Amino acid sequence: MNTFGQIFRITTFGESHGAAVGGVIDGMPAGIAVNEDFIQHELDRRRPGQSKLTTARNEADKVELLSGIFEGKTTGQPIGYLVRNTNQHSQDYENMRNVYRPSHADYTYMQKYGIRDHRGGGRSSARETISRVVGGAFAKLALRQMGISIQAYTQQVGDIILPGTYKDYDLTLTETNDVRCPDSAYAQKMADLITEMKSQGDTIGGVICCVIKGCPVGLGEPAFDKLHALLGHAMLSINAVKGFEYGQGFAGVSARGSQQNDVMIPLPDGKVGFATNNSGGIQGGISNGEDIYFRVAFKPVATLLMEQDTVTKDGEAAKLTARGRHDPCVLPRAVPIVEAMAAITILDAVLRNRHYSL
Amino acid sequence: MNTFGQIFRITTFGESHGAAVGGVIDGMPAGIAVNEDFIQHELDRRRPGQSKLTTARNEADKVELLSGIFEGKTTGQPIGYLVRNTNQHSQDYENMRNVYRPSHADYTYMQKYGIRDHRGGGRSSARETISRVVGGAFAKLALRQMGISIQAYTQQVGDIILPGTYKDYDLTLTETNDVRCPDSAYAQKMADLITEMKSQGDTIGGVICCVIKGCPVGLGEPAFDKLHALLGHAMLSINAVKGFEYGQGFAGVSARGSQQNDVMIPLPDGKVGFATNNSGGIQGGISNGEDIYFRVAFKPVATLLMEQDTVTKDGEAAKLTARGRHDPCVLPRAVPIVEAMAAITILDAVLRNRHYSL
Amino acid sequence: MNTFGQIFRITTFGESHGAAVGGVIDGMPAGIAVNEDFIQHELDRRRPGQSKLTTARNEADKVELLSGIFEGKTTGQPIGYLVRNTNQHSQDYENMRNVYRPSHADYTYMQKYGIRDHRGGGRSSARETISRVVGGAFAKLALRQMGISIQAYTQQVGDIILPGTYKDYDLTLTETNDVRCPDSAYAQKMADLITEMKSQGDTIGGVICCVIKGCPVGLGEPAFDKLHALLGHAMLSINAVKGFEYGQGFAGVSARGSQQNDVMIPLPDGKVGFATNNSGGIQGGISNGEDIYFRVAFKPVATLLMEQDTVTKDGEAAKLTARGRHDPCVLPRAVPIVEAMAAITILDAVLRNRHYSL
Amino acid sequence: MNTFGQIFRITTFGESHGAAVGGVIDGMPAGIAVNEDFIQHELDRRRPGQSKLTTARNEADKVELLSGIFEGKTTGQPIGYLVRNTNQHSQDYENMRNVYRPSHADYTYMQKYGIRDHRGGGRSSARETISRVVGGAFAKLALRQMGISIQAYTQQVGDIILPGTYKDYDLTLTETNDVRCPDSAYAQKMADLITEMKSQGDTIGGVICCVIKGCPVGLGEPAFDKLHALLGHAMLSINAVKGFEYGQGFAGVSARGSQQNDVMIPLPDGKVGFATNNSGGIQGGISNGEDIYFRVAFKPVATLLMEQDTVTKDGEAAKLTARGRHDPCVLPRAVPIVEAMAAITILDAVLRNRHYSL
Repeated sequence: MNTFGQIFRITTFGESHGAAVGGVIDGMPAGIAVNEDFIQHELDRRRPGQSKLTTARNEADKVELLSGIFEGKTTGQPIGYLVRNTNQHSQDYENMRNVYRPSHADYTYMQKYGIRDHRGGGRSSARETISRVVGGAFAKLALRQMGISIQAYTQQVGDIILPGTYKDYDLTLTETNDVRCPDSAYAQKMADLITEMKSQGDTIGGVICCVIKGCPVGLGEPAFDKLHALLGHAMLSINAVKGFEYGQGFAGVSARGSQQNDVMIPLPDGKVGFATNNSGGIQGGISNGEDIYFRVAFKPVATLLMEQDTVTKDGEAAKLTARGRHDPCVLPRAVPIVEAMAAITILDAVLRNRHYSL
Repeated sequence: MNTFGQIFRITTFGESHGAAVGGVIDGMPAGIAVNEDFIQHELDRRRPGQSKLTTARNEADKVELLSGIFEGKTTGQPIGYLVRNTNQHSQDYENMRNVYRPSHADYTYMQKYGIRDHRGGGRSSARETISRVVGGAFAKLALRQMGISIQAYTQQVGDIILPGTYKDYDLTLTETNDVRCPDSAYAQKMADLITEMKSQGDTIGGVICCVIKGCPVGLGEPAFDKLHALLGHAMLSINAVKGFEYGQGFAGVSARGSQQNDVMIPLPDGKVGFATNNSGGIQGGISNGEDIYFRVAFKPVATLLMEQDTVTKDGEAAKLTARGRHDPCVLPRAVPIVEAMAAITILDAVLRNRHYSL
Repeated sequence: MNTFGQIFRITTFGESHGAAVGGVIDGMPAGIAVNEDFIQHELDRRRPGQSKLTTARNEADKVELLSGIFEGKTTGQPIGYLVRNTNQHSQDYENMRNVYRPSHADYTYMQKYGIRDHRGGGRSSARETISRVVGGAFAKLALRQMGISIQAYTQQVGDIILPGTYKDYDLTLTETNDVRCPDSAYAQKMADLITEMKSQGDTIGGVICCVIKGCPVGLGEPAFDKLHALLGHAMLSINAVKGFEYGQGFAGVSARGSQQNDVMIPLPDGKVGFATNNSGGIQGGISNGEDIYFRVAFKPVATLLMEQDTVTKDGEAAKLTARGRHDPCVLPRAVPIVEAMAAITILDAVLRNRHYSL
Repeated sequence: MNTFGQIFRITTFGESHGAAVGGVIDGMPAGIAVNEDFIQHELDRRRPGQSKLTTARNEADKVELLSGIFEGKTTGQPIGYLVRNTNQHSQDYENMRNVYRPSHADYTYMQKYGIRDHRGGGRSSARETISRVVGGAFAKLALRQMGISIQAYTQQVGDIILPGTYKDYDLTLTETNDVRCPDSAYAQKMADLITEMKSQGDTIGGVICCVIKGCPVGLGEPAFDKLHALLGHAMLSINAVKGFEYGQGFAGVSARGSQQNDVMIPLPDGKVGFATNNSGGIQGGISNGEDIYFRVAFKPVATLLMEQDTVTKDGEAAKLTARGRHDPCVLPRAVPIVEAMAAITILDAVLRNRHYSL
């Protein structure tokens, strides 16, 4: 279904070339001041055409808030919102009406529903993430009041990997370049690779890292809704994501328990500290108060501006060269999407964490 | 909450040293023949004490089915079940009553709930997965009728990595050794490493690969409940899991779209085929009829039979050497758990896929 | 939360005097032809100002469909929609900013959320039901293809009660008068009473009866989601509803089992028939193929155009005479709302009924 | 599905003549002292054989608590529980294996699932309510700490109606007679009528009234999950219930708004009071702090110990005289069931009411 979250949750709608994309935010706490400029700023971070590394589509993506706000504050009632689709070139997709793009949702949608809107990918378009970014912006407004911050950045593009961990960089520099990598030299290398791909009509993948600071101890549910399972679900629901790991992740499996365990230490204020944070801020599925960090793998974009072999709806061999305006690499624009889904997940976990005592 | 799934779903209960673990299976299709031996066989695959690589606990773990079955067939009504806890040594945990195990759920549970059953890890114990294995066994009975099979195996223990892909091995050999690795030579190396860890009181992690064959096209929901997001959620909810990837996963991010895309080819029968399966059987969040495969990262077990620094409930420095009977490596016993969660997820997706036309 | 339904479901937003009301329909089967005129017709049946018996507000209430439809058919993707609020007189409510209307949601909203949009009742306004009527119209389009029809009518206004049962009337006459009562003589009496109330600034309640024909056997879930429990939930969620009964309802409790039971009879075609239908088409929570009928009690509208005693936000005694344009009786306009919620509930039950066999 | 509630919720299983009935309570707040005697006492109030007015079955119905409790207190983890079926006479139902009872779930289950456990009604048996009473007992333990009390009583049996409202009686007398009516004279009349029905092999229905005192303002959700819609859903899910009304209910529809509105009055302590409580403690779907009261209609039991016309599974005419031990009137034993479902609903609403501010 098109709803995510239990208490704080978003329900989204919209195709790439339909009238609008949008959604409903439910469970927003009442009394939160709504900064519309901030919400639009988050949308601007994901919008196409923001730099020469992204698609040439230039959509303003202005959000319209329809309900749930009174005299500048949230009322606890559902917030309806939409963004009009204004710059569609549906004719670019005419050659995809009857031909499937390899590794895209074209074929599976058609098989599942027996009908699909082929223009711009329809519902499978990344324009669907606009609705997520708006929801995430509201979640961030609430989390900010609690001192919880979320920062993602591009850690890898193709073979270019930013060395070390998030602690080795000043993450406030993330927004200073088009790639959204906190190191300008690596950002340039990544940008060069993306530009090269673009010139070839090819695409490239990468990895985004996300860091959540300021979470209280106690978020997450023990059995099926462990905090990292919720975060993983959220991330894996983003277009093009192929993997999720938190803390030491896949690399940590070859370590021994005696190397990997986060030894606990008494702090001067009587609280509990940890000598290391290999756990990634979550133990037994529940946040332990340390930084939460995780990594998300994005495959190269499936739509190529080069000829590929494929088949038609009738099962006949065909050649397809996509037209239209497509990103050679989703990473730069996916950074705010990762943050948005993280914010939605964490705010939901915060609200779910209020039931455990009378 | 302690429920997983939308239509086919399990709700579980139970602590390690309480009276029993168990659950309720809801949404089981009616009219499926119940093979109790098969269900018990699945439990036996995860039970402790099954080999010298696992904990010395020797629990029979006999399942008792309480409802939802009439004259050997499912009735469509909920299936209650339980497994009694019979071989608990609660006194082994007395030194953990007031001292937290590093990297374990002890501290986070205590902070979240203000109370915890410290004996055997309480609810955070891997005995909770018994309830999952029973649910998965019922799901397998239904999936089998549809020609869907699920097979997991140990692909990595510590630094020992089975080379190649699942296609390079005869997966029917998986159950021929204690590690559950389909290659006997690698299985022996992995077993030796686990034995070494055990002798040192230390622990080691690894990776399980899982392959699902026979899925129809169309499973999974486009937006938030993409099939791989559901599988990822399921896997990340298993104790000790730190990462999930499907298809080419993290490794695939450095490839180009033109290398990674699965070119579509017409098949002689008019159907659609794929030249490769880098997508891992899922495109746009929906199964495409190819094999689904994914990998799950398990960290080393947190409970060590060696001395560690830690703190008490009162925040004072302490030393802890765990007693009790613990696995040096969860991988061998986690193979049926991964399969169970995959089966539950896939059956749920099959049943959810019935709403798209009148 | 602001979502109703499990598989077919609507999520709604909007306040009376905000920018718009609307929602998202999820789970709509794919391939259904969308008759926009029919949808608008349903909205017109509930719109204010449609006759002299209703409020003088004259809102066009034009629906805008934003997604989920391609070339005139549903695609299985979510359908976003909205109706702009265009004819609000917010100043009419200025005297309610700090004063609570008796028996209205004013006080309870303020206590629950600490903030409310007092204009036009905000979220508690019956304008919220616009979103339901749109959802119901889509549900009716699907149900119609299955031969399921839903017809509600006004059975009682104040003390004026239409005698007999729904079988005694030609329900196609329901829309021939402003009260929506299938008997023109009774309709006139009801209209006269409503007019009298309007002239006094007072209000009056009544009962709506609803009949569902053509349901297959098998809709509804045995335990908590019995079909009548779902219908009851749906009806009780409509503004001003105070009671729900189905079949013989409250009146049937004084009968004996031997009088009340619906004796089963063999039909010539080998099917099963029933000598009577005191059960109201549902037995054990599951539809039995007979007509489903139920009754819904609506209290008199709380907002009176006469002076009432009340209190202010600060807890001080006050007098309030409501201004604005309010219905003296909700029954005529509630008929399409009852139908809409019934249609949503039944379509959801139809889709949920597909999981019981492989 | 077999789950009720959002945050505090129960999932139930079990047939009348299977091994056991039971369930899982999820979302129970941590740290609540568990009084097992109280839980058993609640079960004893619903058990068969408790008086000569009920069925002659004499089941001890001893509850076994399996998890979620540590050193006498709830831990916030799920509470598994079961009650063994010990006194079944399955042979009494042999004549119902292929013959449907009129107005019972026999036929609809068979049509829906294609299989049913005919013994004792299987899942449709009122033994399923054992699981509800246990869940309700835990809810009561929590509500009691908040000062919320729930009291139901038999208000009507057949034509014998206790006059006046709940305020006219001392509800503490409810448990002093077998009918559970707070007036001993009316209780005797009701008992006589039930005895008469029993002697004839016939059955009779009635009405239960339930009063909830001590609720804070703010329980319930504005749109679809209005507090009375949740209560109505809960009540209508109980076997044999045909109607639900709260506050003035159906009777109130013929009053005018000026008669029905609950005028608000300032209280000496600065709080808000109400001159009347026609609303039944709920306004706009949200509790207003006054007593909540509602009425529930129960039809006569469908299973008669007299001959009835019916049909066989093969659609042939048949005669059926039920054997077995059946209640002539469910009201006396349904009182604790109504209370249990009310308690579950209210505790869930209390926990859901914690999300509206940061």
